[in-house]
Amino acid sequence: MKLSKPEIKYLRSLSQKKYRDEEQKFVLEGWKPLRDALAARAPIEFIAIVSQSALVAEHRAIVSDAAAQGIAVRELTELELRQITDTVHSQGVIALVRQLNAQLSEFLEGEETLLVACDELNDPGNLGSIVRTCDWFGVDGMLLSAGSVSLYNEKVVRATAGSIFHLPVVEGCDLLNDLAHLRQADYTIVATAMDGETSVTDLRSIEKLVLVLGSEAHGIRTELRAMADHVAAIPKFGQAESLNVGVACGIILAGIRGNSKE
Amino acid sequence: MKLSKPEIKYLRSLSQKKYRDEEQKFVLEGWKPLRDALAARAPIEFIAIVSQSALVAEHRAIVSDAAAQGIAVRELTELELRQITDTVHSQGVIALVRQLNAQLSEFLEGEETLLVACDELNDPGNLGSIVRTCDWFGVDGMLLSAGSVSLYNEKVVRATAGSIFHLPVVEGCDLLNDLAHLRQADYTIVATAMDGETSVTDLRSIEKLVLVLGSEAHGIRTELRAMADHVAAIPKFGQAESLNVGVACGIILAGIRGNSKE
Repeated sequence: MKLSKPEIKYLRSLSQKKYRDEEQKFVLEGWKPLRDALAARAPIEFIAIVSQSALVAEHRAIVSDAAAQGIAVRELTELELRQITDTVHSQGVIALVRQLNAQLSEFLEGEETLLVACDELNDPGNLGSIVRTCDWFGVDGMLLSAGSVSLYNEKVVRATAGSIFHLPVVEGCDLLNDLAHLRQADYTIVATAMDGETSVTDLRSIEKLVLVLGSEAHGIRTELRAMADHVAAIPKFGQAESLNVGVACGIILAGIRGNSKE
Repeated sequence: MKLSKPEIKYLRSLSQKKYRDEEQKFVLEGWKPLRDALAARAPIEFIAIVSQSALVAEHRAIVSDAAAQGIAVRELTELELRQITDTVHSQGVIALVRQLNAQLSEFLEGEETLLVACDELNDPGNLGSIVRTCDWFGVDGMLLSAGSVSLYNEKVVRATAGSIFHLPVVEGCDLLNDLAHLRQADYTIVATAMDGETSVTDLRSIEKLVLVLGSEAHGIRTELRAMADHVAAIPKFGQAESLNVGVACGIILAGIRGNSKE
């Protein structure tokens, strides 16, 4: 069944954070993200495709998988799709997905042992890459401070390469407050800074650890650094003043997990 | 002295790769990149600022430093600046800089011991971040294959955070050919792939090493992988299918250099 004009307008409104927050839903784009979402049993309300007849076998299989999960398969025109998303090369498929909205309490009461907290992260590519990296290293969950880019921003979702469905992310956090709660729940707080002093390998023995990443522009805030039990070091061998925050996150997580197959 | 209309037009033309290649020059934007360029004694032809009278002390010092290096300080209007660059928040300063154009022969004859080669890298943010990461870990030089994003693309230059002036990058490489030459010059070729087998710590004893990164979309090409003496492994602990190429580069370089201050 074709999407109605009001439905197109509704989907378009979700490109704005304000409406995503109100509706607690977001629009997913592209075949690979959709396949990942289906594999993760994400709460998809419906999918909509541009031209069902012209689908290649791989995409038909994804549509069948959606139908088998009881998800409605709707249609729209290429023009309508362009009204909904700002992607230059659309793949002819979108999905309406409910946000997962993880809560800090899950981490306080649960069996998690490795968390990553981001403070005022502004670049969608960086956040997406960090979620993907956390997923690769089996991080149990993430905290994202108020004032950061929205997790369900189109570019963030794309840059996570499907990982957005693999780990809980708590948005809109007051990190000073939340880290204090995590400390009470036996977490060790590890900050990252270019002048850190604790070797990453020394962090491996810590049982419950939350890694805190600062903003791209200003690094770690003084108040957050003051809360940290350790500031992790990434030894420098050249002249750069700092590393990209996502790269730093990957290096530290690799170091914590162990860099060799043991 | 104010920039002339033809000069504005000339600077604007350099936003296109075609003209940058012809002229072998590029436009640098912003105070921090300019400060980095001056510190690195980059070949700056002139700088141009929007409003000399309104400069804060920090920026006045940068202008003085340029003048002390014998670099002409020109003026332009905010409107003219916007015609030249597509940055949303301009900082009111640009510089015309000659490209450095490193050559492979430098690496074959020189004392370099650690190189990074990128194959068909398409994302400006990724390339910029990789140059910055290579600079942090003291990589001696980079090779960038034909078909990659241009090194002097505005977004790449910004994402390098000044590192573009700290290490030689050879552009437009035919990697199959160049890696064969590097092998003859005693380099060990290490590819990266998500199913790699060689532990990064085992690479530390290699004297002359070139690390080969594949494209964001397709990973490492079969022909390049076939040339590799080793394929480096990044052990996975979660569900993500792959890592961002810049993050993978950082993790492997950190592993090669040693992750602890020893």
